[in-house]
Amino acid sequence: MKVGIFDSGVGGLTVYSVLAKSFPFCDFAYFADTAHLPYGDKSEKAIIRYSREVAGFLIEKKADLIVCACNTASSVAVPHLKRELPVPIFGVIDSAVDDAVKISDKIAVIGTKLTIKSGAYEREIKKRNRKARVFSKATSLLVPLIEDGWSQTKVCRDVLKIYLREIKKWKPGALILACTHYPVIKKEISRILDETVLVDSGSIVKTLKSQIPRKSRRGRSEFFVSDDPDNFRRIARKVMGMRIEKVKLCTKFL
Amino acid sequence: MKVGIFDSGVGGLTVYSVLAKSFPFCDFAYFADTAHLPYGDKSEKAIIRYSREVAGFLIEKKADLIVCACNTASSVAVPHLKRELPVPIFGVIDSAVDDAVKISDKIAVIGTKLTIKSGAYEREIKKRNRKARVFSKATSLLVPLIEDGWSQTKVCRDVLKIYLREIKKWKPGALILACTHYPVIKKEISRILDETVLVDSGSIVKTLKSQIPRKSRRGRSEFFVSDDPDNFRRIARKVMGMRIEKVKLCTKFL
Repeated sequence: MKVGIFDSGVGGLTVYSVLAKSFPFCDFAYFADTAHLPYGDKSEKAIIRYSREVAGFLIEKKADLIVCACNTASSVAVPHLKRELPVPIFGVIDSAVDDAVKISDKIAVIGTKLTIKSGAYEREIKKRNRKARVFSKATSLLVPLIEDGWSQTKVCRDVLKIYLREIKKWKPGALILACTHYPVIKKEISRILDETVLVDSGSIVKTLKSQIPRKSRRGRSEFFVSDDPDNFRRIARKVMGMRIEKVKLCTKFL
Repeated sequence: MKVGIFDSGVGGLTVYSVLAKSFPFCDFAYFADTAHLPYGDKSEKAIIRYSREVAGFLIEKKADLIVCACNTASSVAVPHLKRELPVPIFGVIDSAVDDAVKISDKIAVIGTKLTIKSGAYEREIKKRNRKARVFSKATSLLVPLIEDGWSQTKVCRDVLKIYLREIKKWKPGALILACTHYPVIKKEISRILDETVLVDSGSIVKTLKSQIPRKSRRGRSEFFVSDDPDNFRRIARKVMGMRIEKVKLCTKFL
């Protein structure tokens, strides 16, 4: 079984890591659409178009199912792709929301501007519990901070304190980290919201367990980018602590 | 006379403002390649391709000369386009470097990762004064800080202090702001480097004075984007304090 995973950049590697650990017998094809990153500040139309092309590429690479590891694309493109693709596609929203509503009916959500603006998390939460209260906040600076290596600095802690100030006062039972980069600073967030349970895109593992039959083989992983493999490798190592030997460039997406 | 200006986003509006003020009798066509922003973390190959397409579009729109207001594209794409295009194209590097070498032989440069990595400023400075000393530093977080509205905050001042610490010790005579966003935080930079003269992309005005004949008419400006006109208008207003009524979307670049 081959699992296709895509994101605009390195963020989705947090999802890849969790999946590769849970399903070590699967093959993985990870595509980072680095020619178009970040997805978080593009239009819905652009995101749908990019996601459709990337999903098509992963199907060409024989993916049996696709995980959209980007929260922005999960919000705006996955609903369209579910109707279009010949293989199942999973976003990272449903499973995180499933987990969050089990924990609390007072749920905060942080993510990129477009994810928050889409209202996708709020909508899915209310579908499962219409009495739930939701507090959503765009925290746009976190991805650049993480990618530029500021995660462990006072600047990052200060920015988090400012972003999370109102949420802390509101005292949610659960906080959804609605961006795949955010697990990198999970500890820093926990330190500020010490009474809140954090839920992230790793929740997808539970959803996939029923889809993926157990095997005894050892799977292989391939990595593709639409621009600048060296930069991808460098950031994957610096930000995610992952060493990726081989990254293939697909220029047709430029 | 029509001047075509392009950048990946709103940053080049700082150049547009200066030019529109200096040459109010010119027509302007401004193109923001928002489908591909930011240029600062894409590959050289991608930047050259995008710049070529955008320049072609501006020529279709009857531009008599083109200003590449993006420092990254000025570093990596303009040298190629100078040989290819049927109209003159000016980057923002030459004129800023001309100004800087007149001020000092100890010059610091700050810009995006790709601009700094390209070494274009250092190369141009050494061409004009081979004894000049240059200190270059990538300051990647400044654009996200500015675009997300943090310019006037303590966080922005703290980030600047960290980025400029070594430069301050080095005591340069001139600092080139090698990114069109940076004039927005010029005062904050001056406060830290209070003994250094700041030079920015506005230097281009001097270069163009010999190219543009004076007229008594009043020019018109048009604005185009490759993705999400509303977002462009919103950021132009929030970040640059500019109200732009009409922004046209060109989807062929998506």
